Formats: sequence, C-alpha cells, structure tokens
Amino acid sequence: MGIVVQKYGGSSLSDADAIKRVARRIVDAKKAGNDVVVAVSAMGDSTDELLDLAAQVSPLPPARELDMLLTAGERISMALVAMAISDLGFTAQSFTGSQAGVITDDVHGKAKILDVTPGRIRSAIDEGHIVIVAGFQGVSQQTKEITTLGRGGTDTTAVALAAALDADVCEIYTDVDGVFTADPRIVPAARKLATVTYEEMLELAASGAKVLHLRSVEYARRHNIPIHVRSSFSTLEGTIVTGSINDPAPEGSMEAPIIAGVAHDRSEAKITVVGVPDKVGEAAAIFNALAEAQINIDMIVQNVSAAATNLTDISFTLPTSDGQTAMTTLDELKARVGFESLLYDESIGKISLIGAGMRSHPGISAKFFTALAEAGVNIGMISTSEIRISVIVDQDDVDRAVQACHTAFDLDADEVEAVVYGGSGR
Amino acid sequence: MGIVVQKYGGSSLSDADAIKRVARRIVDAKKAGNDVVVAVSAMGDSTDELLDLAAQVSPLPPARELDMLLTAGERISMALVAMAISDLGFTAQSFTGSQAGVITDDVHGKAKILDVTPGRIRSAIDEGHIVIVAGFQGVSQQTKEITTLGRGGTDTTAVALAAALDADVCEIYTDVDGVFTADPRIVPAARKLATVTYEEMLELAASGAKVLHLRSVEYARRHNIPIHVRSSFSTLEGTIVTGSINDPAPEGSMEAPIIAGVAHDRSEAKITVVGVPDKVGEAAAIFNALAEAQINIDMIVQNVSAAATNLTDISFTLPTSDGQTAMTTLDELKARVGFESLLYDESIGKISLIGAGMRSHPGISAKFFTALAEAGVNIGMISTSEIRISVIVDQDDVDRAVQACHTAFDLDADEVEAVVYGGSGR
Repeated sequence: MGIVVQKYGGSSLSDADAIKRVARRIVDAKKAGNDVVVAVSAMGDSTDELLDLAAQVSPLPPARELDMLLTAGERISMALVAMAISDLGFTAQSFTGSQAGVITDDVHGKAKILDVTPGRIRSAIDEGHIVIVAGFQGVSQQTKEITTLGRGGTDTTAVALAAALDADVCEIYTDVDGVFTADPRIVPAARKLATVTYEEMLELAASGAKVLHLRSVEYARRHNIPIHVRSSFSTLEGTIVTGSINDPAPEGSMEAPIIAGVAHDRSEAKITVVGVPDKVGEAAAIFNALAEAQINIDMIVQNVSAAATNLTDISFTLPTSDGQTAMTTLDELKARVGFESLLYDESIGKISLIGAGMRSHPGISAKFFTALAEAGVNIGMISTSEIRISVIVDQDDVDRAVQACHTAFDLDADEVEAVVYGGSGR
Repeated sequence: MGIVVQKYGGSSLSDADAIKRVARRIVDAKKAGNDVVVAVSAMGDSTDELLDLAAQVSPLPPARELDMLLTAGERISMALVAMAISDLGFTAQSFTGSQAGVITDDVHGKAKILDVTPGRIRSAIDEGHIVIVAGFQGVSQQTKEITTLGRGGTDTTAVALAAALDADVCEIYTDVDGVFTADPRIVPAARKLATVTYEEMLELAASGAKVLHLRSVEYARRHNIPIHVRSSFSTLEGTIVTGSINDPAPEGSMEAPIIAGVAHDRSEAKITVVGVPDKVGEAAAIFNALAEAQINIDMIVQNVSAAATNLTDISFTLPTSDGQTAMTTLDELKARVGFESLLYDESIGKISLIGAGMRSHPGISAKFFTALAEAGVNIGMISTSEIRISVIVDQDDVDRAVQACHTAFDLDADEVEAVVYGGSGR
C-alpha cells in the first residue's frame, strides 16, 4: 500500500463546510487504498487575524512569541479536519509540527527544515489512522523552540513529509487547476501544463508564479518527490512537477516545448545607487551591508562607468517589503562609499520567460524583446539564467507584456480552460 | 527573591487592551522584586467559539482532537501576553502545558495533573524572563498526547505551578474582588472574606461558588499553597485561602466566624426513582450503573419504605448536563431492578450554608431551616457534612433563600462593598 501526502492551503479550509469537503476528499484517497498523510495550513485568513492581534499588543513582537502565536492557526485547522474525517466514519489523528518530527534550524519566522523524524506518524499510519499534520511549523533542533517556516511553508512541510515517508506522490491542493503557461487572470488563453521539470518550476516560482512555494520545489528536487499541483475544487488532473531538464527525452516522446511559461512579479522594488566610484570593493561594501541587514537581492545591474567621471550606477531589485530597511542601510553607508545619491522605485514589474528549450534554441531573447517592443513596453533591466530571461518593466505595462510574450511564443490555447477559484493559501 | 504565580482568566484577557492591562499588572509584580510565573486562560469567549467550530464539523468530535483544538486558545493568549510584556521593556517567554512540564493522566477533556516537571520554566526564570504558561492543558504521561483539564483548569495549573516552584503565593485574578459571604449579584450586602480555610473554600466551591475551581483548592490544600483570590480590575486586597479548620486559633485572635458564607447552585437536576423494592443491593445496582456511565452524583436521599408495600423512593441530584444520560441509563435498568417509575426535575436549586464554626455551635440547622421557612421557601432534600448544610429548593426560590439565610446569620455588611466586573473565565 502506497503513501500519498496531500497539502491543503487556507483557501481550501476557509470554513466548516470547506473543511468537510476537504475531509471527503481525503477519505476518497484512503478508500482508494492509500495510506494518507495530510499537511494543512491555517483556516482562511486566520493567520492575518492573528498577526493583527499581535500588532494590537505590540508594534514589534518578539519572533519567538510570534511563532508561538501563529502556530495556533494550524493547530485549529488540523484538529477540525481530523474531526470531520472521524465524522465520515474514518479514524484520523492530528499532530503538530513538533509531534510530527519536523526539525528545523532556530531562525524564528523563516526556519529551514533540517530533518523529519516521523516516528509518531509512522505509528499512527500503522494503526490505520489518517494522519493530519500542522503545516508551516516545526521545532528547533538546538533550543527545542517552536518555529515557523515563513509564508508558503506548508508546501514545504508536505514535500518534506513525502520525502521522509518515501511517499509515492505529494499532492498540493490549491485554488487553481495546476501550473499554467501564464497567470490565467491576465492571459485567459493560458494553458495548463501536464508536466513541468523541477528546474523550470523553480524558475517559475522564483519569478513570481505563486502556485508553489520555491523552497518546496527545491526540497522535492533534492529528494526526487513528484509534486502533483491540482485544484481542491475539482477532480481534474493538475500539473505534475517531476524530472530534470537534463533527463534524456523518453523514447518516442515528442520534443519538449521550448517555453514552459511566462511569469510575472509585482512585489519588487528597484534601488539605484547613483555615482558609485568605479574602484575595487565598492559593490562588495554595498551588498555586504545589505546582506547583514538580512535583505534578499534579486536582480543586479551595473553599467560600465562613464570614462569622464569614473563613476558608475548600480541598480538592483528586492522585495518591496525590504525597501525601507535597504534605503536606511544604504544611507548610513553613503559617506564611507562616497556615492552620489539613491533612487527608489516601487512601480516596477518583472516579466520572466522560462523554458528548458531556450538552451538549444538561439534567438529566444531577440523574439522576447521584439514582442515587448511591439507591445510598446520599455525594458528597464535585463537578467538571464540558463533557462530564464527576466526583464524589469513599468508596473502598468505588466499585463500587456505578459499577454504579448504568451502570444509571441505560441502558448495561447485554442479555448479558455483555466478556472481560478479563490484567494491563495500559505 | 520569591516566586509569585499569577493566574488570569478569560474575562481578564478579553481583547488587546485587556491583555495590555494584564501585562502592566504582571510587570508591576516583577518590578516589586519577584520572579513571576503566570498561567493564562484563553481570551474571552474564544473557547466557546472553538467548541462551536467543532460542533459545525462533527456532532461528536473525538476527545483527542477536541483537546488539540481547545489548547490553541491558551497558545494564542499566552503569546499575546508575552508580546505585551515585551512591549513594556521586560522579557517574557511563553510555554505550552507540555513545555511547562504539566504531566497529566490520559483522560482527554478532564485530565488530572500527576506531576509538574518545571525544568524549562526554571531555566527561563534563571535567565531573567517572566514566564507565561498556557493554563488548562498538559501532556499525558503514557501516551504523550495533549490533554485538557476541564473547565476551571487554569486555576489548577496555577496552583500546581506554585507548588512545583515552591512559590510564596498563588494569586488568582478574577472578575470579582475576592470570596464573598454570598453571590453579590443576589445579596448586595455580601461581605468579602479576608481569609477562608481550605476546607471551607472546598465546600463553597463544591456548593456552587464559582470564584475558584474545586480541584485547584484541593491541590492547594494538599501542597499547602496560599491562594490569593483578587480582582484583575482593581488593586484591592482580595481573599486569602489558607489554613485548616483544625489549626489552633492564632494567639490573641478573635474567634473565627461561625459561618463563612452561603453558596447556591442552579446547575443541578433531581431524579427520583419511584417504588424501588426495599431489599439488599437495589441502591447499589442503581448507582453502579450511573457510575459506569461516568455520571457524578451529588446528594442522595432515601426515605424509609412504606410498611404496607415494602417499596421506597430514592432521590438524587446530578449536573443537569448529565440528566439525559442518567435517565437513559436508568430506563435500561428498570426491568432488572423492578422500580416503578422515574421522575426528572430540572427546576431545582441548592442552597448551602458553610462554616467551620458549625461543628461547635449547635442549632445552626434549626436556625437555617427557620430562616427558610420564614422566607416561605419549601425544602425538598437535605444533606450535611461536617462544616456544611445543603438543601434543595425550588429554583424560583433560590435568590430569596440565599438572601434570607445571609441575613439570619448576621452576614450582611453595613454597606455594599462588592463590585462584579464581568463574565467568568475558565
């Protein structure tokens, strides 16, 4: 008998009726002959409600206590899911992250999973129970403190459980039908991908596709766990994330598509450090200071310096939420580094074209830039990886840019097939 | 430096403002030079809200999962209290029952504390933290499952922590100013007791006084922990529960008052088993069956049988919430025991007069019954202990009966001093 791990996000668990529907779905998997382990997020908006309560008692709550608070959310949803399953005549037991053996480092608020020791879960499975595990949380190896994994953490919990239990598949239930060639809310003709490789999914997730959390895909790739992304609101097959771009094509298979999809991201801001002296160590000083302030940088562009002044400009993008901290950090650095000024721009968007095929097909960049030009979209920054090209554009141009690229690379479906059901879980 | 344990119930933690007020109170105790350990209940009505959610997904949720669900309530309040303390510039750490070492038996929903192993709490105290502990919950010794202690359990958590930490005092903060000679909502002239013995407090709690939970008083007596019952809404001294009715009176002290107070209880029902054959083993059969159904019986009265029929009636009282189960249980017993019929009455109330002095003062019963008679209150059943007399009366007569007894035993204060602030916590 195989083990199936399922994950349900907050939007699939918004109220008692939703929980009962999820319970029926879980029981169906059990009836089909599987051992079933389920990772759940907190119900609906309850995490935001808890954050709001915290803000009311303290503007800057200690991270340890914030984790203690937020983990109550999954505790509530997992117990209710177990009750709903029991009401269907099946037996279920719920476990906190700590009880489930989800061992993390001790970074409150964004802990990393170090190990999963699923002894209690295995026992519960052996006793015939359906197992419900609180997503998003664990216990730190050194200090035995309760930790949380950050937004999207429940995806990672599910994949980590699947790896530790040697599950056949990790099913991520969400509010869309799978992974699409673009956001169906922007491109109605977006197509659902039947399969996508880990590498492509990583680039999609890193480029703004919200359907799967980046770290869960990394974890799945490392442990070779197939992820099935599908809707909790329908019984359609979703998208299977599996395989590498370096795998040989299966015999008799058609050539893989060149482009997997077009992703976009409106959550970044751009900072330009103007007039940086063009000498050794200046960029290092800037980015070391930002790293010490725990700020994640995405794209970095440095132009050649103007010969006359020997000054250069360095631009980079970062999450808008880190913008204020970054500007303060850089301001303190101004005298030492000796740059001229700082520019800050939140009204940007990032468009990314992702596909394993671009390694062997020259001219992808040219076609991409041409499509953007014909749509009247100006390009602010460019960055590339082996299987991705990203550009920064004006935020108002994002929808138009995505649509234009999707069409230019022949990704449009003949008819609309995407259905978007609700918000997005964590 | 002494350790003070404090307990705050749900009505003292109803919202963010209430939590901030409690945090200031806790910090005051720390500033006064104490090490402070605090047991908290869930916020306001949140336990009832969780129970309501459970009822929506399952009419009969598994007890294990119900405990998992309900313990989320204290997790939320304890983290928020710790945050509010931190916002005042003091350092606090919160701990679940399990983390705090509250070891219980494995009876979900009404577990008993077997032991407290406060290693983590002691470490946190040694590091200078104010410690916040989730009340009402623990972890079972054998199965390592999360358990809850039942309604009022946070009082017991606080007392158990005080005993394990060898605290100077256990302060129970509530929404009244202390223990009164009667419920001030019924008797405006009720007086606050400065002190009361464990035995008297036990009888008061068992007789319907809701200010302290029975098991917490038992625990405090066994470990000789003084309890200070006081209001979280004022700085008045409350009531100290300490000492035994068998202690010698301190030298030079006035004689202890004869009557500590008048308690009442509207939460019981009366069942009469009519026409029970008066032979050996009949009563045993009845009460064994009820015990097997986990029903707690309070008062039992059996009259002498009528000579002509050799039949007797047995009446007993029990929590109204167990009434339906008891009637069903007895109905199944009817053929075997051979009684005639069952009577069920929920419209009863219990009035209890409690005081250590009644052991050495004859005539208390006569005065009690006379006061009731003069108030026109009919007595349905009578039961007594060493320091208590209880009667069952019509529920509509409860207020009048309490008032009459309070006056008859000269308990009325010269002026009204009681203030009642809100609902009651758990």
